[in-house]
Amino acid sequence: MDKDEIVKLHATHTGVLEMAPELAVENKTDLGKAYTPGVATISKAIEKDPSLKDQLTLSGKLVAVVTDGSAVLGLGNIGPAGGLPVVEGKSLLYKDLAGVDALPIAIKQVPIDEFVQTVQNTSLSFAGIHLEDIAAPRCFEIEDKLRQTLDIPVYHDDQEGTAIVVLAGLLNAAKVVGKNLADLKVVLNGVGASGVATARLLHGVGVQHITLVDIDGVVKPDSTTYNTYQTTLAKEIGLSVTDNSLDDVIDDQDVFIGLSDADVLTGAQVERMADQPIIFALANPKPEIDPAVAHAAHAGVVATGSGQYPNQVNNILVFPGLFKGLLLSGLKSVDLAVEEVVARALAQMITTPTPEKIIPGVFDDGVVETVTQALLNSKK
Amino acid sequence: MDKDEIVKLHATHTGVLEMAPELAVENKTDLGKAYTPGVATISKAIEKDPSLKDQLTLSGKLVAVVTDGSAVLGLGNIGPAGGLPVVEGKSLLYKDLAGVDALPIAIKQVPIDEFVQTVQNTSLSFAGIHLEDIAAPRCFEIEDKLRQTLDIPVYHDDQEGTAIVVLAGLLNAAKVVGKNLADLKVVLNGVGASGVATARLLHGVGVQHITLVDIDGVVKPDSTTYNTYQTTLAKEIGLSVTDNSLDDVIDDQDVFIGLSDADVLTGAQVERMADQPIIFALANPKPEIDPAVAHAAHAGVVATGSGQYPNQVNNILVFPGLFKGLLLSGLKSVDLAVEEVVARALAQMITTPTPEKIIPGVFDDGVVETVTQALLNSKK
Repeated sequence: MDKDEIVKLHATHTGVLEMAPELAVENKTDLGKAYTPGVATISKAIEKDPSLKDQLTLSGKLVAVVTDGSAVLGLGNIGPAGGLPVVEGKSLLYKDLAGVDALPIAIKQVPIDEFVQTVQNTSLSFAGIHLEDIAAPRCFEIEDKLRQTLDIPVYHDDQEGTAIVVLAGLLNAAKVVGKNLADLKVVLNGVGASGVATARLLHGVGVQHITLVDIDGVVKPDSTTYNTYQTTLAKEIGLSVTDNSLDDVIDDQDVFIGLSDADVLTGAQVERMADQPIIFALANPKPEIDPAVAHAAHAGVVATGSGQYPNQVNNILVFPGLFKGLLLSGLKSVDLAVEEVVARALAQMITTPTPEKIIPGVFDDGVVETVTQALLNSKK
Repeated sequence: MDKDEIVKLHATHTGVLEMAPELAVENKTDLGKAYTPGVATISKAIEKDPSLKDQLTLSGKLVAVVTDGSAVLGLGNIGPAGGLPVVEGKSLLYKDLAGVDALPIAIKQVPIDEFVQTVQNTSLSFAGIHLEDIAAPRCFEIEDKLRQTLDIPVYHDDQEGTAIVVLAGLLNAAKVVGKNLADLKVVLNGVGASGVATARLLHGVGVQHITLVDIDGVVKPDSTTYNTYQTTLAKEIGLSVTDNSLDDVIDDQDVFIGLSDADVLTGAQVERMADQPIIFALANPKPEIDPAVAHAAHAGVVATGSGQYPNQVNNILVFPGLFKGLLLSGLKSVDLAVEEVVARALAQMITTPTPEKIIPGVFDDGVVETVTQALLNSKK
């Protein structure tokens, strides 16, 4: 489908979503049930017990998928209006894949406290907040402040979602190459929202050797070019690296995880990695290295974020089932323990991992149910 | 239907609305059209020309029905959660009656500037703002500030909607009793959001004798008990009244318009009005006077806000078609000229007004189309 056809398709429906009535209103009897005078009964019940709104109004099931368009998939900061099609697409996936009602919301790129206040002021309208495509480090503070003040789940797909799906893939990739997860030497290239969250989770499950690299080179605890989220993370991970660039640190690494940009890894660098290196080149839409080049350089497993190659490591595997699970379980946020449970459940869907199949496909049977059930189990 | 059944009905669906997909996503081809990679084309097009979002995303058709729950129909200030069922009901009516996509939003009762900022910050997500059940005088400042800063329509149903439907009814009621609209002596009881807007419109179409009465009695330009919106209105209308209470001013009035509270007008007072007085007792759910009592006191025409009596003067006649017209016409707000055009169009739907039929019924054929067309005509 070419670009003109895609534009035409989205223009035909003015987007990909609409509102739908749960009740028909064709006469006074219908009106009395759905609106006046019956609605006064509902309003009075909620006035008396505000928690009833979650059972009696749309707000009890509606997830706001919120962006400011400051870090849109491979496109960068294209503004809140530019971010709308992505959050609308994710809202569509919520409904189509998991039956979750979700609404795309663009918020202007206002200062962090004002952004947080805007979400807080409207939060009674929603059952949960899914943050999307908000640039680091802004996204960390926004998520923290919302989690501290709201009593509904707050989830940042670029952080928790990516971390979960990367761990799920890595669990099986390690099996394929016969290496122990904890012993893997991992270089993680791109320490934005998803890089920070992924490094935290890998460290949390016991991966001992993680080297962080971003646009200005290796992130060290005393780096002055990096923000406090990045340097604090480097300190937490505890690795002492004296080299400065990706090229300096790539020798003998078992795993390259790219959450960065197209074409930043070469075949020659893959050749210098350990035996059967695992390459997760997750930049969208173009990966950090062409999978064919990585394979030619003797990679053991190659994954990308794209559906056009085997092993698509993509958040779509996570967020629909995960938010369904949050709403069903009453869990308010996704911590490292929950992330690990979900990642392991996804990994276990592949009974015999192979280089070409380390992770379920987006449309494989049972993905949503597996993720949802993992959430429900973690609540017990 | 009893109260338990109504609660059960709203609980069955978790409200009365859901999100619906415009596209099915069942495989990679679908995904490519609705989300990645196709969505990048849409995002880039909008980044280049932000106005395209109105054609290519839900935001181009979605009306936010926004309340803070500070003045909910007959229930008073029941809080933003309590206000949700009402804005959800109106959102349902938008879709069921006019095919307009609308979303219920509750915003906390924060200071006016913060409330305005919250709406502004999220406004890219919507094609229009319908304000609902926000107390006066707060609602006036909120609407003014939003109209001045947003480039989408901002409409307050309790103001413009009520004013339109009252004028529509009054045009035909005057015909029924054979009086000239401009010469009518009108006492308007209840000078909140709807009272202010109704008085402005009646004055705007040439009604020369309007007396305003609120909870502390007659509103005079120099009243210190009333807010500036009320005293400024009294000055604009220009009537000099020395009496102090509704009972003081009721003698010889042609019209009583109640936008106030149950049972504030007596049959004895109706008897003291002019010949064939017109009684609009629009308080909800219980009118200012029982229609039977008003008729017994020789009222010429009686209307209420309720569907259980003849002549239901209700905003449902206005808002679905009106916002449909706003979206189709590109009009950004509803001024007095537009209000008059819509009111006259509604009134003209009744070819031969009678005491029992001065205004179309909510479910009469052609109501939405008539209102929408009036908007489109007023744009020409």
